[in-house]
Amino acid sequence: MTIADLLAGPPTVVAAGVDVFSEALRAQGADVRDVDWRPPAFGDPADLAALALDPRRATANRTAVERVLAAGSHLVDVRPAREVLDLPDRTLLHAGPPIDWASASGPLRGALVGACLFEGWADDVEEAERLLAGGGVTLDPCHHHRAVGPMAGVTSPSMWLWCLADPVHGGQAFCNLNEGLGKVLRMGAYGAEVLDRLRWMRAVLGPVLSAAVRSRDEPLDVKAVLAQMLQMGDEAHNRNRAGSLMALRELSPSIVAVEGWASSDVAQVLRFIGGNEHFFLNLGMPTAKLAMDAAAGLPGSSLVTVMSRNGTEFGIRTAGTGDRWFTGPAQTPVGLFLGDYGPDDANPDIGDSAIMETYGVGGFAMAAAPAIVRFVGGTVPDALATTERMYQLTLAENPAMQIPILGFRGSPTGIDVLAVARTGWLPQINTGMAGRVAGTGQVGAGLVQPPRVCFEQALAALAGEARAPAAA
Amino acid sequence: MTIADLLAGPPTVVAAGVDVFSEALRAQGADVRDVDWRPPAFGDPADLAALALDPRRATANRTAVERVLAAGSHLVDVRPAREVLDLPDRTLLHAGPPIDWASASGPLRGALVGACLFEGWADDVEEAERLLAGGGVTLDPCHHHRAVGPMAGVTSPSMWLWCLADPVHGGQAFCNLNEGLGKVLRMGAYGAEVLDRLRWMRAVLGPVLSAAVRSRDEPLDVKAVLAQMLQMGDEAHNRNRAGSLMALRELSPSIVAVEGWASSDVAQVLRFIGGNEHFFLNLGMPTAKLAMDAAAGLPGSSLVTVMSRNGTEFGIRTAGTGDRWFTGPAQTPVGLFLGDYGPDDANPDIGDSAIMETYGVGGFAMAAAPAIVRFVGGTVPDALATTERMYQLTLAENPAMQIPILGFRGSPTGIDVLAVARTGWLPQINTGMAGRVAGTGQVGAGLVQPPRVCFEQALAALAGEARAPAAA
Repeated sequence: MTIADLLAGPPTVVAAGVDVFSEALRAQGADVRDVDWRPPAFGDPADLAALALDPRRATANRTAVERVLAAGSHLVDVRPAREVLDLPDRTLLHAGPPIDWASASGPLRGALVGACLFEGWADDVEEAERLLAGGGVTLDPCHHHRAVGPMAGVTSPSMWLWCLADPVHGGQAFCNLNEGLGKVLRMGAYGAEVLDRLRWMRAVLGPVLSAAVRSRDEPLDVKAVLAQMLQMGDEAHNRNRAGSLMALRELSPSIVAVEGWASSDVAQVLRFIGGNEHFFLNLGMPTAKLAMDAAAGLPGSSLVTVMSRNGTEFGIRTAGTGDRWFTGPAQTPVGLFLGDYGPDDANPDIGDSAIMETYGVGGFAMAAAPAIVRFVGGTVPDALATTERMYQLTLAENPAMQIPILGFRGSPTGIDVLAVARTGWLPQINTGMAGRVAGTGQVGAGLVQPPRVCFEQALAALAGEARAPAAA
Repeated sequence: MTIADLLAGPPTVVAAGVDVFSEALRAQGADVRDVDWRPPAFGDPADLAALALDPRRATANRTAVERVLAAGSHLVDVRPAREVLDLPDRTLLHAGPPIDWASASGPLRGALVGACLFEGWADDVEEAERLLAGGGVTLDPCHHHRAVGPMAGVTSPSMWLWCLADPVHGGQAFCNLNEGLGKVLRMGAYGAEVLDRLRWMRAVLGPVLSAAVRSRDEPLDVKAVLAQMLQMGDEAHNRNRAGSLMALRELSPSIVAVEGWASSDVAQVLRFIGGNEHFFLNLGMPTAKLAMDAAAGLPGSSLVTVMSRNGTEFGIRTAGTGDRWFTGPAQTPVGLFLGDYGPDDANPDIGDSAIMETYGVGGFAMAAAPAIVRFVGGTVPDALATTERMYQLTLAENPAMQIPILGFRGSPTGIDVLAVARTGWLPQINTGMAGRVAGTGQVGAGLVQPPRVCFEQALAALAGEARAPAAA
């Protein structure tokens, strides 16, 4: 086709952006196609162009999201952290990007103190604080060890871990056992009731669960449970009621058949699980971690593989930028408070649990869980609108994670850094709120977003990676 | 105010029905109030007027629905039917209004045959059929004994019953234990696997549950579980997944602590409950029965207290007409079929389980359970529209039974015979489908409505009752 051919026929106009132009043309009888475009919300234009034109991007993102969607999650074992994680002595894992004691917020400090007491590294709070402040304990992110931890995420060598495996890609992921709500280590509490519960979990819950999980003929398909949860009003981050019940149903026959335990211990294990509506969270998080790890390390992909917070900073990682963290100051959630607590009591955002949103559930699937608004705030229409909006940020709809009220549409999955920059909309996370002061515990639950700067940095880095192969 | 006063001021017009009149007046500047009225859909005009003008009606209906909403439901015991129901020898209870063997459909006959074999009243199918055809077994509706039974509803003396009590009004209600899906007695199957399962339920499940329920410090609040179910995607008639899991959670610690049973028996009990997503239905039904019984026998009330089907006829009762049944031919549900079964295999509507819709859940609360459409057919918008429509037939919104997606609006509760006649809309029931041929078992699940004639008869009877006091 030559230019003369183009001019011979009637014009076909493609109009991008403001529709006043296309309407004027249409009024004159022209054939106009509208492209839904608006100016990017942030990012250097040269960076945006470099990333948009990266020839690897489309294929890399398709591969990345296919790996995320294909990943499975089987519960294969329950073992002490020291056996699983191959940690150096006196190391504690924590949520979020790397941080030191000096920068740690109250709830992370509280959980670290509690873990030192629990492990017997210190006899009292002051000694634990001296030990931690003096560098006597190595701090390392859970995410650096294929692990995730809700809230403070502090994981110590003698805690028992859920051990999950991805039968499709061969990955492994780990998470400690959920303690329940209120005064718990992961919320920064470290009093006697917290330590007593952790000791019971170490002495009874962990061994019983380990024996029960090992005695099963087939591993528990945790991904299938997660999918069912969205049919049962859970979004799997702050609402895990159905998931916790299903985990109890799946595990209880094996728990009852475990030998060598008194029936009172077995009944206490069942009561503990049955009394904790967040019990499943620590199985859901490593399930999401397995899926996102399956997409890690794909050059050219702008998929977000990690969103995580240490209580001071929010950090993200992308598939195309390896192990680099892009961090910014953590925001404080807005939501509902327990008892007499209020906004002044809340610590900034903390926890690896935003891996749920990274995987496309949690805040991204709030439409499946309208009752969540009674826990995190907002209205039912907000919940529906949030999920609708997240489709604009994501690369796929997860056919395994269907949202009934949206006509069984798959949940919005796979955050694209470029889509975030273009729309200016940030991922919506719903999360627990820990007390700002070490030792407090949970004060509420609410809604929060990452700081935009994380995505600005990631965009710049991805653009740099996009230019690098061209320069090579 | 005199007539002259009326004429002195500007007219205020109240326009009922077609809005062309009010629009014409409004165009001329008149102050018009619209009344949403349309001609009644059925019923003798004199009957409709008599019922509408019955001076007792408003108060009686308010009292009736207040009693329904206030009713509670506690699980207080599990006992064999013969101890609880005080039945004459050789009596079998069944679902729906009264019926004899000659009129019984396939699944009811199948269940009656199976019950005779289970009780040892006959050695084979032919002998059981002869016994039943010869009047050797008395048949009586469950509803005549404060009991309810899903599908065929056949309840025999040695079956164990859930025993529920209403702590507010002092009522009691009973229901046998759910067998699961597929080839089960309540669906009309009576083969060896059916009888073996019933024998295990008699020998192990019943006694273990009985001991577990009796050992609890407090009775299980079944109404509270039912309320939670609507927050978890169950509508509590054909979707009881969350309810069954919650029942398992509540009962399992007591089950494990029951003495004198091998851990293999206990594990089998937990597996049986955990493997049956309809386990809760037989707790939900007597909960609804307690609430509706609390409103029975209120002269002047046009509230429907029972909707029930025996596989041949659909029957209803109202609060204002005592023990009378108003019956008509049962319709065949339209829905989805299991395996190779199709519409020709389905028996007409059967079961006491429409007590759930009578109480305002089940088909009335489908908006809370959009995933139900995968089981009974239809679309998610249908499910939402059905609940919206049922508000037009009902006297109240149940504040205890909230539907999250409707902004936590209470479920539409308390069917008013007059509202049904005025709108012409019939209650929407979702239900299981039994095979038409005795011995088949379940063939599917779907949607069904009562025949209009039940409501026509009830309307005429209520109108007669309304006229009687005036004549006295």
